[in-house]
Amino acid sequence: MPRFKIIIEYDGTNLLGWQKQLDGDSVQSLVEKAIFNLTQQEVEVYGAGRTDARVHAFGQVAHFELGHNFDEYRIVEGINAHLRELKAPVSILSAAIVDVDFHARFSATKRSYIYKILNRQAPPVLEKNRVWWINTPLDIVKMLEASKYFLGCHDFSSFRAVACQAKSPIKTIDKIEITKKDAEIIIYIEAKSFLHHQVRNMVGALKEVGIGKIAPIEIKTILEKCNRNEAPATAPACGLYLNKIEYEKND
Amino acid sequence: MPRFKIIIEYDGTNLLGWQKQLDGDSVQSLVEKAIFNLTQQEVEVYGAGRTDARVHAFGQVAHFELGHNFDEYRIVEGINAHLRELKAPVSILSAAIVDVDFHARFSATKRSYIYKILNRQAPPVLEKNRVWWINTPLDIVKMLEASKYFLGCHDFSSFRAVACQAKSPIKTIDKIEITKKDAEIIIYIEAKSFLHHQVRNMVGALKEVGIGKIAPIEIKTILEKCNRNEAPATAPACGLYLNKIEYEKND
Repeated sequence: MPRFKIIIEYDGTNLLGWQKQLDGDSVQSLVEKAIFNLTQQEVEVYGAGRTDARVHAFGQVAHFELGHNFDEYRIVEGINAHLRELKAPVSILSAAIVDVDFHARFSATKRSYIYKILNRQAPPVLEKNRVWWINTPLDIVKMLEASKYFLGCHDFSSFRAVACQAKSPIKTIDKIEITKKDAEIIIYIEAKSFLHHQVRNMVGALKEVGIGKIAPIEIKTILEKCNRNEAPATAPACGLYLNKIEYEKND
Repeated sequence: MPRFKIIIEYDGTNLLGWQKQLDGDSVQSLVEKAIFNLTQQEVEVYGAGRTDARVHAFGQVAHFELGHNFDEYRIVEGINAHLRELKAPVSILSAAIVDVDFHARFSATKRSYIYKILNRQAPPVLEKNRVWWINTPLDIVKMLEASKYFLGCHDFSSFRAVACQAKSPIKTIDKIEITKKDAEIIIYIEAKSFLHHQVRNMVGALKEVGIGKIAPIEIKTILEKCNRNEAPATAPACGLYLNKIEYEKND
């Protein structure tokens, strides 16, 4: 039974997120349907990260097993042809045969997310549903200063969704970068793993710093309180992109 | 009668182009409707470039006159509010009061277009309708070499739409740049003005060079033939963006 690792791009706007749902399309269900239509095999597709409704991905990773071998180039062509037939906003960027102990979620050593903010008076049209539109000017220098308090190992209880099922609220942020090009602000965040809503909750707090509602140092105070009620509101899903999942070299 | 210069972003996917049409929405008609709904004044909005159906703009420029004064910030807010009500994929980025002899089209001193190609096996989903998807690998070094033949003043009859109404086929290309980032190839072209379909016809020829169907030097030969039938097919509209229109400093 060959095991395939696939890299997936999706436009989350009209999707219910990664995970299968009873009441609509998810990335997982669409990819499984496309694989079934291609191979007549009912497979379970395991994703590296369970993104929420309306969240996008440049490079989600998943794995699945097939009963017989398939050329890597042809499986990309085949799944994409069936995704297009399903009118799915999902595209398989690549496929590779991997070891049977490779697991998209548990073998991951690093995950990165990108959050896009459009900071200008005019609402977006070319990037509609692709950015968080904020028409109050943001102070990016203060946001940068604030972002440093997230770096390293912390109890992220203040930035964790109430519904989060992780056993521990302790996470380590390895990198956080904020860049601005014209009206677009890009926040890049890297860690081994994240809590539910962690990136969107961090971005929500950085926005409050950017508009001057809280001082950069307050990020430290909010972290120390370990209480979601003490932190600013969650940033909207439409600005978030699962960027890249990394593995050991031989994966 | 104050005259306003506005800068406009639009997603051309579901539009019939810049110019008013009887059978559907155009940028011009939507902006005129929004201005009417805001001011109760029937105005004519003059654009700098008449983009085709499905072509986008980062920075189209237009002008119009109103019977009474309006604050520049408030007119942007007001037109955008009415554009949103019309569900128009159009956004006014800025407005400025200009001299009465300013003309969006005739005062322009420089125009630039951007053409986006996505060059990879997998079809686009995040950039659907925003790029020309080409799944054959393109040789960007050859495309760069070929692009140099377009620079300067030439008779562009081979790269001009049959329906083009310009008096002369002579145009001067001031700048052409081709850059690649990941799978995306960006072609940037700058001139004082362009013929109808000129950018898309030039890109169509560069693509033939990129896939190895014609040699870079053939661009020179095609130019010299001054015959549209001797040139490769027009590139699709969805990859084209009217980028920026420039004027004398005091405009």
